[in-house]
Amino acid sequence: MAAFDLQGIIGNTRKQKPLVHSITNYVTAGDCANILLACGASPIMADDRSEVEEITALAGGLVLNIGTLNSRTVESMLLSGRKANALGIPVVLDPVGAGATALRTEAVGRLLSGVRFSLIRGNISEILAVHGEAGNTGGVDASWKDRVTEENLEEVLGTLQDLAGRTGAVLAVTGALDLVVDGERALLCRNGHPQMGGITGMGCMLSAVAGAFAAANPERVLEAAAAAVVAMGICGEQAQILVQAAGGGTGTMKAHLLDRMCRMEDETVEEEGRYEIL
Amino acid sequence: MAAFDLQGIIGNTRKQKPLVHSITNYVTAGDCANILLACGASPIMADDRSEVEEITALAGGLVLNIGTLNSRTVESMLLSGRKANALGIPVVLDPVGAGATALRTEAVGRLLSGVRFSLIRGNISEILAVHGEAGNTGGVDASWKDRVTEENLEEVLGTLQDLAGRTGAVLAVTGALDLVVDGERALLCRNGHPQMGGITGMGCMLSAVAGAFAAANPERVLEAAAAAVVAMGICGEQAQILVQAAGGGTGTMKAHLLDRMCRMEDETVEEEGRYEIL
Amino acid sequence: MAAFDLQGIIGNTRKQKPLVHSITNYVTAGDCANILLACGASPIMADDRSEVEEITALAGGLVLNIGTLNSRTVESMLLSGRKANALGIPVVLDPVGAGATALRTEAVGRLLSGVRFSLIRGNISEILAVHGEAGNTGGVDASWKDRVTEENLEEVLGTLQDLAGRTGAVLAVTGALDLVVDGERALLCRNGHPQMGGITGMGCMLSAVAGAFAAANPERVLEAAAAAVVAMGICGEQAQILVQAAGGGTGTMKAHLLDRMCRMEDETVEEEGRYEIL
Repeated sequence: MAAFDLQGIIGNTRKQKPLVHSITNYVTAGDCANILLACGASPIMADDRSEVEEITALAGGLVLNIGTLNSRTVESMLLSGRKANALGIPVVLDPVGAGATALRTEAVGRLLSGVRFSLIRGNISEILAVHGEAGNTGGVDASWKDRVTEENLEEVLGTLQDLAGRTGAVLAVTGALDLVVDGERALLCRNGHPQMGGITGMGCMLSAVAGAFAAANPERVLEAAAAAVVAMGICGEQAQILVQAAGGGTGTMKAHLLDRMCRMEDETVEEEGRYEIL
Repeated sequence: MAAFDLQGIIGNTRKQKPLVHSITNYVTAGDCANILLACGASPIMADDRSEVEEITALAGGLVLNIGTLNSRTVESMLLSGRKANALGIPVVLDPVGAGATALRTEAVGRLLSGVRFSLIRGNISEILAVHGEAGNTGGVDASWKDRVTEENLEEVLGTLQDLAGRTGAVLAVTGALDLVVDGERALLCRNGHPQMGGITGMGCMLSAVAGAFAAANPERVLEAAAAAVVAMGICGEQAQILVQAAGGGTGTMKAHLLDRMCRMEDETVEEEGRYEIL
Repeated sequence: MAAFDLQGIIGNTRKQKPLVHSITNYVTAGDCANILLACGASPIMADDRSEVEEITALAGGLVLNIGTLNSRTVESMLLSGRKANALGIPVVLDPVGAGATALRTEAVGRLLSGVRFSLIRGNISEILAVHGEAGNTGGVDASWKDRVTEENLEEVLGTLQDLAGRTGAVLAVTGALDLVVDGERALLCRNGHPQMGGITGMGCMLSAVAGAFAAANPERVLEAAAAAVVAMGICGEQAQILVQAAGGGTGTMKAHLLDRMCRMEDETVEEEGRYEIL
């Protein structure tokens, strides 16, 4: 498949400091704002329908996260998404828990009908559910059945590229193995550490970072998403080493992970990334 | 009174990894999600009335916290609570600020009428207010007048067991001294440290942990609540020692406390617990 | 101009432990609650219109923050603000993103018409927007054009004192340089560190602390706001030193900053404050 590289994505973000508008859940909103700052962007969070279009118009990127969606915020997401499309700025969807309830399925359906997404980031169950495939969502974690493994990698990759080709959105599927694909290209990332799953909102934070990188690199959304996935994985590994040395746990790990993102550069991705362009 | 022990509660939780549905306040939602993960459970937070029953149906336990309740979320709590009752999964109530306002008094009344709770966890003012006793709620902290002390312990215990016998719910009253009672049995816990009161959401986090332990041990709710109370107290003590050594404060203490919960086992409760079965 | 000093502000707060009611955004609510505890106050957060007046009536101070306002919470803010005025307790406004959208401009207008504020705390763009002056709000950070510098200090000071004289509210304008003014007096503070801008909610937290200090010192709102500004700046400097030594970033810095506030005393402000009474 076509070659590509991740260089310059983070440097551009630190240089441009894009304003990223997030309509997101209240569980991890603060963490998302902090990691947006850590990766070089500037966060703005507003969800009232009477102002979201104006907020989006100030921003360089938009991230829609349905973690604690309600009927009020779904309307706001639609308004912001359409505005972002009209302005040509990247829009990221984090379909938290897609497939778990009728509300989420319907909300995702309306969002996909009304908004062109640049990137959809979720676990494999969520990504399949978004595309109407039989996923197996049991809450917000990927179900065992739908886990991406070395064994089913080829099959999953084919399915994802087919889906990406249909919608035109880059897909980032994260788990033990991470895949980032568009209709023609794909990257497999092996960075990360299982203990990251013990911190709430790792996925939300990754979607935020991907939104920041895409906002600063709107012509390179696949590379932006891939750089975000690799960078988060590296941050998790580095934080885990610090935590292990100190006999700590997920409380200090979250703080260290944010610290590591503050120091993340294109060179770090180059040197510590363990990824393959497929 | 009847004997009981706390063994196996935490081990069961780590083995079963129960999904816990929380409808909770936005001030401490992230901390509650993180401590649920730390104690071996998996969090899901959703509060829109159109999906809460489906979410509850996926879960092994439900925690209702009225910290920032509004008319929209009270309805969601009622729907989820009834669903949990129908499915036979444990339901925990954290009546934050009960007695402080008419809205809270009325909401608690509706919840108690509509839902059978397995456990109610609060400070003594809140627990008295929940039962229509003259508490003295001044905000979210227990008022001086209603504090449990060595002197009034007998009297408080009698009152609580009477209340527990009436509602059928286990009661966990936390403060300088912690009491966990049902109509027949009682545990007094002396673990914990005053500096825990300097961290917002310690009570919310405790209710979440108790919900996780109860979800994994639905036939042993008294023991689950007691293990949660003792475990949180131990975490606070351990975190405070680390903070004291480093000259820190509540910012680092919260991270250390979460770290300690990641490493909490039944053996830790056995070895470091300072409790009496009354 | 008239002389004043900051002594006693923090000691009074730690002695009185005022209950502070905040109607605030869900992004930084937990951080605001924690820093209220760290500075000696007790937080309560409630935003439903049917209970906010009762909550305010329990409190010694009120903080209104429009960070994630919506039509529901604006009404609650108005009710609480009027109640606080009737009771004579201090009210702080944090006009996050004022000037960025019609909703915010209109909300601020309604709040200023309906409520007498003791203190308004924001960046220079927000403060100008609040007063109908042509600010240049681009999201939640002060725009370059409106930055307070050594060069434009005189001019900005004149404008602010004119505005403060008109509304009767103390104004606290924070950025690289901080100014706290009423119609007659002014303080310039040089404490702080640029890395504080990498932590979300520093402004929200400062407004909360100012609300706590004002609640405990209602006759000395200018001094309370100034002590809060200086204290936060010192906390940021102290935290940054710890972070720099450890090779950390904003994740650990936030925890250290909270730790430092736990240990902040009037003497710290006296010894480490770098401020001038103008």
